[in-house]
Amino acid sequence: MRGLSAALSSPPFYLSPSLPPMTPPAKHLSIPSELKPAGTSGAQLLAIERKKASFDSKQMAAYLHGKKWLQRDAELVELLQNDPSGAFDKSSWNYLGRTDKFRAALKKDKRLAQLAREHSWTREVEQHAESLCDLPGPFGLHKSMFITTIDSMGTDEQKEEWLGPAMRYEIIGCYAQTELGHGSNVQGLETVAVYDEKTQEFDIHSPSMTASKWWIGGLGRSATHAIVMAQLVLKGKKHGPHPFVVPIRDPVTREPLPGRYIGDIGPKMGYNTTDNGFLLFDHVKVPHFNQLARFAKVEADTAVYVPPQSSALTYGTLTWVRANIVQQSRTVLMRSATVAIRYCAIRRQFADRDHPKYEGNKPIETQVLDYSMVQARIFPVLAKAFAFHYTAKYMFDLYNKNIENINQGDLSLMAETHASTSGLKALCTIEAAEAIETCRRACGGHGYSSASGLGSFYSDYLPQVTWEGDSYMLSQQTSRHLLKQMRAILKNPDDVPKGFISDYINMYFKNKGTQAHASYSGDLYDPMWFVKAFGYRAAHLIEQTLELRDGPSKRSWNSILPELYKCSKAHAQALVVYNFAMAILHDEELNSQPALRTVMQQVFLLYCTHTMELEGAEFLSSGYLTPAQYKLLATKVQECLAWIRPQAVPLVDSFALSDYLLNSHLGSSKGDAYEGLFDHALREPINSSKWNVDINDLDAADIDQSQALPRSKL
Amino acid sequence: MRGLSAALSSPPFYLSPSLPPMTPPAKHLSIPSELKPAGTSGAQLLAIERKKASFDSKQMAAYLHGKKWLQRDAELVELLQNDPSGAFDKSSWNYLGRTDKFRAALKKDKRLAQLAREHSWTREVEQHAESLCDLPGPFGLHKSMFITTIDSMGTDEQKEEWLGPAMRYEIIGCYAQTELGHGSNVQGLETVAVYDEKTQEFDIHSPSMTASKWWIGGLGRSATHAIVMAQLVLKGKKHGPHPFVVPIRDPVTREPLPGRYIGDIGPKMGYNTTDNGFLLFDHVKVPHFNQLARFAKVEADTAVYVPPQSSALTYGTLTWVRANIVQQSRTVLMRSATVAIRYCAIRRQFADRDHPKYEGNKPIETQVLDYSMVQARIFPVLAKAFAFHYTAKYMFDLYNKNIENINQGDLSLMAETHASTSGLKALCTIEAAEAIETCRRACGGHGYSSASGLGSFYSDYLPQVTWEGDSYMLSQQTSRHLLKQMRAILKNPDDVPKGFISDYINMYFKNKGTQAHASYSGDLYDPMWFVKAFGYRAAHLIEQTLELRDGPSKRSWNSILPELYKCSKAHAQALVVYNFAMAILHDEELNSQPALRTVMQQVFLLYCTHTMELEGAEFLSSGYLTPAQYKLLATKVQECLAWIRPQAVPLVDSFALSDYLLNSHLGSSKGDAYEGLFDHALREPINSSKWNVDINDLDAADIDQSQALPRSKL
Repeated sequence: MRGLSAALSSPPFYLSPSLPPMTPPAKHLSIPSELKPAGTSGAQLLAIERKKASFDSKQMAAYLHGKKWLQRDAELVELLQNDPSGAFDKSSWNYLGRTDKFRAALKKDKRLAQLAREHSWTREVEQHAESLCDLPGPFGLHKSMFITTIDSMGTDEQKEEWLGPAMRYEIIGCYAQTELGHGSNVQGLETVAVYDEKTQEFDIHSPSMTASKWWIGGLGRSATHAIVMAQLVLKGKKHGPHPFVVPIRDPVTREPLPGRYIGDIGPKMGYNTTDNGFLLFDHVKVPHFNQLARFAKVEADTAVYVPPQSSALTYGTLTWVRANIVQQSRTVLMRSATVAIRYCAIRRQFADRDHPKYEGNKPIETQVLDYSMVQARIFPVLAKAFAFHYTAKYMFDLYNKNIENINQGDLSLMAETHASTSGLKALCTIEAAEAIETCRRACGGHGYSSASGLGSFYSDYLPQVTWEGDSYMLSQQTSRHLLKQMRAILKNPDDVPKGFISDYINMYFKNKGTQAHASYSGDLYDPMWFVKAFGYRAAHLIEQTLELRDGPSKRSWNSILPELYKCSKAHAQALVVYNFAMAILHDEELNSQPALRTVMQQVFLLYCTHTMELEGAEFLSSGYLTPAQYKLLATKVQECLAWIRPQAVPLVDSFALSDYLLNSHLGSSKGDAYEGLFDHALREPINSSKWNVDINDLDAADIDQSQALPRSKL
Repeated sequence: MRGLSAALSSPPFYLSPSLPPMTPPAKHLSIPSELKPAGTSGAQLLAIERKKASFDSKQMAAYLHGKKWLQRDAELVELLQNDPSGAFDKSSWNYLGRTDKFRAALKKDKRLAQLAREHSWTREVEQHAESLCDLPGPFGLHKSMFITTIDSMGTDEQKEEWLGPAMRYEIIGCYAQTELGHGSNVQGLETVAVYDEKTQEFDIHSPSMTASKWWIGGLGRSATHAIVMAQLVLKGKKHGPHPFVVPIRDPVTREPLPGRYIGDIGPKMGYNTTDNGFLLFDHVKVPHFNQLARFAKVEADTAVYVPPQSSALTYGTLTWVRANIVQQSRTVLMRSATVAIRYCAIRRQFADRDHPKYEGNKPIETQVLDYSMVQARIFPVLAKAFAFHYTAKYMFDLYNKNIENINQGDLSLMAETHASTSGLKALCTIEAAEAIETCRRACGGHGYSSASGLGSFYSDYLPQVTWEGDSYMLSQQTSRHLLKQMRAILKNPDDVPKGFISDYINMYFKNKGTQAHASYSGDLYDPMWFVKAFGYRAAHLIEQTLELRDGPSKRSWNSILPELYKCSKAHAQALVVYNFAMAILHDEELNSQPALRTVMQQVFLLYCTHTMELEGAEFLSSGYLTPAQYKLLATKVQECLAWIRPQAVPLVDSFALSDYLLNSHLGSSKGDAYEGLFDHALREPINSSKWNVDINDLDAADIDQSQALPRSKL
């Protein structure tokens, strides 16, 4: 076993290279340099925690991310931190007002574009680098939606026209769909594109204030071009929303082109480094060529509408976007858990009531991580990170399989894929957002400081809950499919092909009225026990909801939306449990490494028992779980928390998130939280002025800065 | 019945006077002035909603707030909005970086102090004015903790020394308790005050980095004096933390005095208009006089410690602070619900699947407020506002009764008062924070804009969850008392005086093993049915937890913290239900106004059934509620939501929160959300520069502003 000093002398792999020197703190501020935090240092406490590992964090990291990803991550962190432009230096970002922060994000996006060109990065590598910077910038939507949409919905001629210039950043694009009065309901968009076959031009127009494009990322100050979703009108007849490429600004003078009213929509709760914009059209003419025509198109001379062959591909893209959101939510959970668990291992508060320890005759305060209430709040976040990890993998597998099928004309996987990604998108974004805030609060007062890194992370993550399908509405897509599946099975089970949903519904009908087997907490260990329980609960809810809709009460769709939401959530959780269970039972890479397998089994049990306890009412009211069994869950959760306690720091180390990404003094791998908080304080710009507090002198709110610098003898 | 035009022509009472003219939007930006939102205007939609009222909002407002408060509120809003200094003009605050925002808050606090002097405001009126401004400023802690502590803990001579100058703002104070490494555990503070009876001085010293005072409001840039909590050391013996008044800055030069290291702690998730600060002492000497000596004191010549007589008064202050927090949480709920309900009445999205309506041949989109999933998210917030209203009233009554008792030497109410305020503080702050975010999300994408007013409101509210006793830890105070009460009753019920807790525990033992009576949702109407159910569930949890602690397993206190938390929450909810039920049954002012009584009864039912459904697992696992009854709850919740739907806008009008306080374009009483969003956009400062997006030109991030002003022909 390595000694403590050995553990400290050679920095382990999860310590990222030192940050480049940051902007120095205000000169007139200082604290005595000999002051250190009291008691055992944070670095020592983390070293002690790391020695408790029953497994190798490095092996776990390789299992989770793959060695290729880990190496690329290290290389990118190295590159960004040492970039001479300073465009990726995070040290000042917390202190900037919006204008300066937007400037920093623009510089960062430009430099990223340069690096991508210099190093010939693939889109995947570029995205990886971008995610490390963590400052959503004005080119974000250009790189994702603008280029992707032209690539997937443009004809070869259209790609030739716009793709090259876009890839070279000669033009900057945005994707203008949402309107001031129209978000989720794309069919309700007001912007029109009226075709005139004589001039062979579309007339793009905003008929009202609520027709203004709104929230469009990159539009406010950056974009030269927009893909505009507008109602296609041919000979007075509407054909629904279609995409048009519309030049909006002169790329050189940056002036809006005639007939376009453009601006940034103003400050937001987060994401202030992106220029979300508005755009109104006053009868702007674009040529026939500018309607993206790979699928639906308009005959130039006759104005005849040629509808698309199939909408399969659109579903494919949607699924891909949502699978990415699930994947991101996993990283969000990893990041939140890393910050909270490391800081709670360093932070001490109160001596243990039952077993006080002493250092000399002074009672030692307990590590906050030892309190069961803290464990009960943050270890489930850790467990969920692993759970969502497997489900993200599953989503990508399903996506690939589905695309393969579609290419062979087989659409059989489409409905289930769409339903599951929708439900998972809702579940994962809501729970990831909640997890950030849970972890922030578990850090106590300091969680509220920008030095925790969790506040702005939360604010910037929140749009995920609302965009790409509002997570509270989206679940209707899932539940519609769930009801349909149960209806079909009730009609004739043999007509319904095997699949995850039909399996648990069939199992439910077979076992209906039975109860789970478990008489003491030791009975709660078999992965399939949980798979069965979550399936039963989901099917029971679907059955109840179907009864409301199809039964004698014939309830309206609108009146059962909360029930539909519950079905979707139960289904998504059943899927997460299933994917996790399959990994425990059948993942060869995992099962060939017993130390990893053992800790993963405990993490699995915590995820399942904790989720079941939280959602207990539905398990109990289905009759499948008895009150006595419900009470076993709390006991089992406590057992799992206690088991995981010594593995908590090694487990978050295995997430292998660099200090550069975390950007959190509290979550630093080095354990220097208190030193970091002082560093954070000394850089605060308001410390550079002296402030006049004389209430009779209303407007002279600060004293001339030249007077402020000298300080009394310290 | 009033016609629509009549309703629109005379502005009703809840429309606050117009805001003074705001800073004009950037000149080069404009949108065509003739553009209006499509369809029925927001103003008309709100007018239609208001006509649905089954009761008079004005009467309800008078019932909730009292006519005196309503009148004062209107007068203060009028005064602040029209103040010639502009110190209370909120229109620019959303756009400021921290330094400018801090400057604005300092100006606002100075002007408030002037107004308080000019108008001879009581502290209550001053607080009312302060709460309307909604920009926590640098004098906040001076007015609350500094002055209050000197007043309550100082001797007459000490009050004479500091109170006058503090009230006249000649000195500015702060309250320095929390340290970098020590928050909740006051006994663990490191700062020492070592008395030297020869010099008759205390030596205030920070022995380590973690001893630094931290988070101290007003300390960073403003305060001249601090009340410092430090370990009193007499002849080498520690006597625990005691308060000292320590001068820290020269009031004229603003220089820190020798031996003090002071600064602002840097940016935070919110509250950036307050200069939370740090403070380290390098052997700072203060005279014997500066130890606040009304209770505990030190004999000047002999260094003999004279302990305080009783800690009753401290408990009193704590209770008062927490009762205020409960009261504030009520207003938080009112405010969140007002914004979300008004905006969801204006916002329309999708046509009804089952019953589409048409305007000509165009399908009309449904008001978002009609969707049951939206109702299920935001109406419970509305209901909770009323529920917490009654409990806040109860807390103040209890506080006053307890103080009266204490003055007569009767401490019998102290323990229960302390337990209940602790549990309520935890419950109310956590649920109020959650409610703001729930309401923000229910506003869809626009909820994320600063124009919603909910984002910064959330960020500024969050510290309430952590300070004045971390809400996740504080519940231990409640549960300790709950366990103690049950132990005493188990020993001898006759020895335990009657009270809310002993009542429901006794009732539980009497009814143990029985089940609730309810066989269809119509059975769920009697307030006492809910009082009984919530009491049963709380007592059952206490019994289970007591068994863990005192039974054969003898579980450690630390290992049962999650169970203790559940007990505290269940107790607090039982208390909220009880207070609400008592109002429904016995409040004469309410019962004499049948229209108010009717709507309040529905609100009560929604609060109870929704809370019971959410916490269903505990009701079910106690055996008191059957699975069939649990399912009735969902039905009853739906019935309540449908009943409340037409009353929702009138109900939030009855909260009578001025547009000035709300500071939300979405929640404006005038219904001009979309116009407001444009107004918000046009003022954005980044719209005043043209931004260079050429990726080869890394640092020239914006184009000379002089070139940016002219725009192409619109």
